[in-house]
Amino acid sequence: MFELVFPLTVVCALALLSSYVFNWNVARHSSGNEKMRELQKHIREGAWTFMFEEARVFSVVTLAIAILLWFLFYWEVAFAFVLGAFLSMSAGFIGMHAATLANAKVTNAARSDVKKAFNIAISGGAVMGLVVAGLALTGLTIILVIFSSEFNPATLTIESKAIPFVSDILGRQINFIKAALIVSAYSMGASLVALFDRVGGGIYTKAADMAADLVGKAEEHLPEDDPRNPATIADNVGDNVGDVGGLGADLLESFVGSIISVIVIYLYMYVGRANPDINGLLAQIGVSNPSASHWWLLIAPLLIVAAGIIATLIALVYMVLTKQAKDMQKILMNGTRVSAIFTIIFASAIILFSPMNLNLFWCILLGVATGLIIGFVAEYYTSSKYKPVRKLAEETSAGAGIGIAGGMALGMLSTFVPGVVLALAIVLTYWLAGLIGIAYGALGMLSFVAMTVSVDTYGPIADNAGGIAQGAELPEKVRKVTDRLDAIGNTTAAIGKGFAIGSAAFSALALTVAYMWSAAGSAGEVVIPTIEILSSDARIGGAVIAALFLGAMIPYVFSALLIQAVSETAKKLVEEIKRQFKKFPGILKGTHKADYKKCIAITSQSALKKMVVPAIIALSMPFIIGFLLGKYALAGFLIGALLSCMQLAVYCANTGGALDNAKKYIEEGHYGGKGSEAHVASVIGDTVGDPLKDTVGPSLDILVKLMSVVSILFASLFPTYPIFF
Amino acid sequence: MFELVFPLTVVCALALLSSYVFNWNVARHSSGNEKMRELQKHIREGAWTFMFEEARVFSVVTLAIAILLWFLFYWEVAFAFVLGAFLSMSAGFIGMHAATLANAKVTNAARSDVKKAFNIAISGGAVMGLVVAGLALTGLTIILVIFSSEFNPATLTIESKAIPFVSDILGRQINFIKAALIVSAYSMGASLVALFDRVGGGIYTKAADMAADLVGKAEEHLPEDDPRNPATIADNVGDNVGDVGGLGADLLESFVGSIISVIVIYLYMYVGRANPDINGLLAQIGVSNPSASHWWLLIAPLLIVAAGIIATLIALVYMVLTKQAKDMQKILMNGTRVSAIFTIIFASAIILFSPMNLNLFWCILLGVATGLIIGFVAEYYTSSKYKPVRKLAEETSAGAGIGIAGGMALGMLSTFVPGVVLALAIVLTYWLAGLIGIAYGALGMLSFVAMTVSVDTYGPIADNAGGIAQGAELPEKVRKVTDRLDAIGNTTAAIGKGFAIGSAAFSALALTVAYMWSAAGSAGEVVIPTIEILSSDARIGGAVIAALFLGAMIPYVFSALLIQAVSETAKKLVEEIKRQFKKFPGILKGTHKADYKKCIAITSQSALKKMVVPAIIALSMPFIIGFLLGKYALAGFLIGALLSCMQLAVYCANTGGALDNAKKYIEEGHYGGKGSEAHVASVIGDTVGDPLKDTVGPSLDILVKLMSVVSILFASLFPTYPIFF
Repeated sequence: MFELVFPLTVVCALALLSSYVFNWNVARHSSGNEKMRELQKHIREGAWTFMFEEARVFSVVTLAIAILLWFLFYWEVAFAFVLGAFLSMSAGFIGMHAATLANAKVTNAARSDVKKAFNIAISGGAVMGLVVAGLALTGLTIILVIFSSEFNPATLTIESKAIPFVSDILGRQINFIKAALIVSAYSMGASLVALFDRVGGGIYTKAADMAADLVGKAEEHLPEDDPRNPATIADNVGDNVGDVGGLGADLLESFVGSIISVIVIYLYMYVGRANPDINGLLAQIGVSNPSASHWWLLIAPLLIVAAGIIATLIALVYMVLTKQAKDMQKILMNGTRVSAIFTIIFASAIILFSPMNLNLFWCILLGVATGLIIGFVAEYYTSSKYKPVRKLAEETSAGAGIGIAGGMALGMLSTFVPGVVLALAIVLTYWLAGLIGIAYGALGMLSFVAMTVSVDTYGPIADNAGGIAQGAELPEKVRKVTDRLDAIGNTTAAIGKGFAIGSAAFSALALTVAYMWSAAGSAGEVVIPTIEILSSDARIGGAVIAALFLGAMIPYVFSALLIQAVSETAKKLVEEIKRQFKKFPGILKGTHKADYKKCIAITSQSALKKMVVPAIIALSMPFIIGFLLGKYALAGFLIGALLSCMQLAVYCANTGGALDNAKKYIEEGHYGGKGSEAHVASVIGDTVGDPLKDTVGPSLDILVKLMSVVSILFASLFPTYPIFF
Repeated sequence: MFELVFPLTVVCALALLSSYVFNWNVARHSSGNEKMRELQKHIREGAWTFMFEEARVFSVVTLAIAILLWFLFYWEVAFAFVLGAFLSMSAGFIGMHAATLANAKVTNAARSDVKKAFNIAISGGAVMGLVVAGLALTGLTIILVIFSSEFNPATLTIESKAIPFVSDILGRQINFIKAALIVSAYSMGASLVALFDRVGGGIYTKAADMAADLVGKAEEHLPEDDPRNPATIADNVGDNVGDVGGLGADLLESFVGSIISVIVIYLYMYVGRANPDINGLLAQIGVSNPSASHWWLLIAPLLIVAAGIIATLIALVYMVLTKQAKDMQKILMNGTRVSAIFTIIFASAIILFSPMNLNLFWCILLGVATGLIIGFVAEYYTSSKYKPVRKLAEETSAGAGIGIAGGMALGMLSTFVPGVVLALAIVLTYWLAGLIGIAYGALGMLSFVAMTVSVDTYGPIADNAGGIAQGAELPEKVRKVTDRLDAIGNTTAAIGKGFAIGSAAFSALALTVAYMWSAAGSAGEVVIPTIEILSSDARIGGAVIAALFLGAMIPYVFSALLIQAVSETAKKLVEEIKRQFKKFPGILKGTHKADYKKCIAITSQSALKKMVVPAIIALSMPFIIGFLLGKYALAGFLIGALLSCMQLAVYCANTGGALDNAKKYIEEGHYGGKGSEAHVASVIGDTVGDPLKDTVGPSLDILVKLMSVVSILFASLFPTYPIFF
């Protein structure tokens, strides 16, 4: 085991150390003049306000769940959960620290040297990317080391436990693999943070954006990011809590989820290796003696993501050190390519060196390819460089209604290629390596997550830098540079967004497969799980179909609640802005300072409050379905939810992205440009698209992953048959 | 057998005879003055133009498919298919005849006697309702009688056939029950008509509506239905081809589908009665000697829908004869209630009298209840009497963007209760009577379809009557009466719309179950079908999951194509209207007659052309999936498609309905009334909602049913495993 854990430790240390170096590479630059520093301070404080408020609520929830896990299972499970939550939360704090540290420095550098500004922004992003991947991997390594006895081949077995009260009610013991519970709990900790960050941050960012636009731009005709607009800081804070914190936590969750699904599936395969079917599956991936290859099989997924971190480091160093400053878009794209290629090379080396055969490597390669294709489709449908958005701009020029309908059609149409590609990847990975093949596909997709997060974090930093340039009333040319920096991030960000959805779907599927093993294993003997849509066992059959319907419905309700949350939070903020304008007429004249803090406080409180119902739905549905309809039905529910989430997420993200870019395309001067009727129509379209792309779409990713991981953890509790039969 | 077929024949004769009487009750009234008669003539001719054009295309497709069926199976199968198509087409023609005959007569009666006007409108609707149910039942009865030897217990068995070429390519014989193929082919005939009518009619109606509004209302400020607007007749024609023809064909298809799914499932159960599991299922519904009860089991579903026709007749007679004219809303609601209650009473009598036990009756009752609940939920979310639409109107008053986002949230939220209720109905019907229980639930939901169609057809007749009043420049008070008639139809229509979606979902599920039996039967021995999401047979497992994803994706692509078809057709019509205004400036002054026919021709041609790709998708997907991924994967595909279709259909219908009624609510004087900013915003919202509710939502119903019935028919052709493994 040691020879495998050692390289992991090295990579973890390297990742965290280099994130420190990148942070230094940000901190050493100046934040510019006093006004810029003040704006930066406001944004930082606003972001901290929200993060701390969220952390406070979160701690209570975490504590309650940890106690429950301890009571139901073991302290180790509770510990892993808390560790996962703590590390994910920390990653968010560190990343946010770097991002809000970088923004004004980017603005300041943009006054003189564009490549320097680029370097600061990408360094700020790199801190988040490396910390996300590094801390997630560190946590898993810690768990493997300190609980190594639980993962030891000699002790690995299905354990039984009788829990007071619970066993009495259910009338039976609970069966599970303790090691599988521990890693699942770690993943659930990360998922819970993601739920808070993505949903809360998503509501925050769009409500602030919408309110700032509604009163500021539409009613008072202030430009974007005007310091006289009381919501302008809240808007900039939103970019950080939504796009930095939210996206980082989301991808961290997918990352951990895809690793632990491989581990959980493997653990059940190992325990059930005496079963000839399972033995056949192990033989398919080239393992003839599972006990001898145990540590390799267990740690391989961690090694592969470690390889992804090294590949990302290489790419990041290239991006910072390269001298050319003409085509920075190309630097970002090259960076992504470099990290993908090195990840593939390293992964092939690891698999070749391991006792497994190359089937698993092909699965990883399929995962990488699928992720990239889904990403490029997102780019094609949402960039004004291509036909769809240009056509949408034309439709919008004929009226807002036709434009929005066109945007919806575009989003719906954009589900085609991702659906086909994902289906193909599923069939092929399954064919190559059985159920664990699907999990390896997801792992491949997420292996170079550090790169994706770095580039995605670059975007909001550049965006904020532009906001500060506007707020500090710097010369037009500085704003032009920051706008250019912002724009080159957009393509890669669109790819990243598509990538996040695709990877969420793939990793949720892997988690669902892991759930099925856990559910099958909880019967006390380990076989390959089968879930029947229609069962010859009449007590199950109807329940699975019913659960599929319920699963497909929940994401719609969840989305509805989020859109309403954004609207209602925006409404409160609008009232506050109007109140300030009315009470202090000097604000609009620029003689009286707007009360940014009040706006931030109102948005924070409302976003956190509106998060409660969606969060309860996400956490409670697995229990409701599991207890009422049984554990097979819960698998159906998860599949139904996954199908809806995937479709809705792609539809929402691309509809929103396309409407946004159609607006920008018109603003560039097409169809009459700014102020034209077409522009007014496109602004209406953007209002509809904004919550779809930045709140609903990303939150759906979390919903399905969180429900899956909760199901894995509590699989053993659920009865086989619907409770009322 | 004779004693069971005899009452069917009586009911069929009665239904067709009374539809003739209702038609007489329309025809005997005057169509009013010359201008009114002229408008009526235009609408009639326009509707015929479209119907004949459609029938021409349709005949070619029908002929091609009939030849294929003859070649693959038997002439009886081809005959049943043609019969189903012919009868469904005829129902459309007759219903359209009555509806376009009634409109001006309703207008004319509205000048003197409101109850008389109501009677004419509901009589016109009754013609369609009775013809739909009557012809569908007649066709099935004819098939049972002339092919009775195929349904005879002595000859019923799994047949094998070797087809030249096909068997060579597939390398095997084809197994099926011939009788099951015959009824499925009949159903597919009806489905194909529904596809043409719903999709083509749906594109037509909304494109005409949108174009008329865009140029007429928005640019030239003409009022609704103004005769100077060249698209005004096309708009009125659209109401007929979309809401009369389309909805009638849709419900006819659901009606036939729910009947034949019971028959197909039963036939496979009968053939497999030696299997102890299937024997247990038969015992569960009280059948100990299947051979002795054979004809009862086969004909029971027809008897139940016959009971529904009688119940509808009672309700229709009550509605026409009742003297009270104060609360006509109540008459319509009471009519629906009367037909539902009598259907339940008659159905219980039939089941009590049959050799089956009451379990099947409970399934029927659950179906009726589910249909009504889903209908009322649709009403709650889309009527301005309740909170959701009022809140939406308030949101719209804050801006079009917020309003549309609110409308989307409302539609998404409205999927909750239908999802839960349907899931409950599935679990319970399955628990009561196994797989055939689900089919009986669907049957119950559709048993009083004659009533639903009658009331739904009443709506567009009253709507057209208003259009004629406006077009013929009758006094304001006549328009007020027709508006009132129109309004009272809206509530019931909303319920009907929800009902259509719920019934489509339920009957599609029943059809999918029937498909699974057919697929299982095609292996040569009959067992209870099981479809595994995850299979221990590695060659199947991945394929089913992949197919679920593909199934969930297709409805989105289909919807996107429909929205685009509406936009593009509307665009062509807008160009034509502008051309006419420019070439003949006299049109706008009222001195030159607009060229209605040209507008109608353009809309017809474009609608039929834009229908091609969606139709090809609907017809080809089962073959693509079946041949590439195998017959189990096809079941997964159908389930995936069903889940997406159900959710999307509810979402689209209710979002569109709510946005429409929010607009009407504002027009009533709230938030500033007509001409206010809120009104402008609500009109934009309506433009987005219109294609969703009248084109996309209803077409999704057809998509999933058609794909299921095609799958049933061709189940035996598909291989077990994905073709490439």
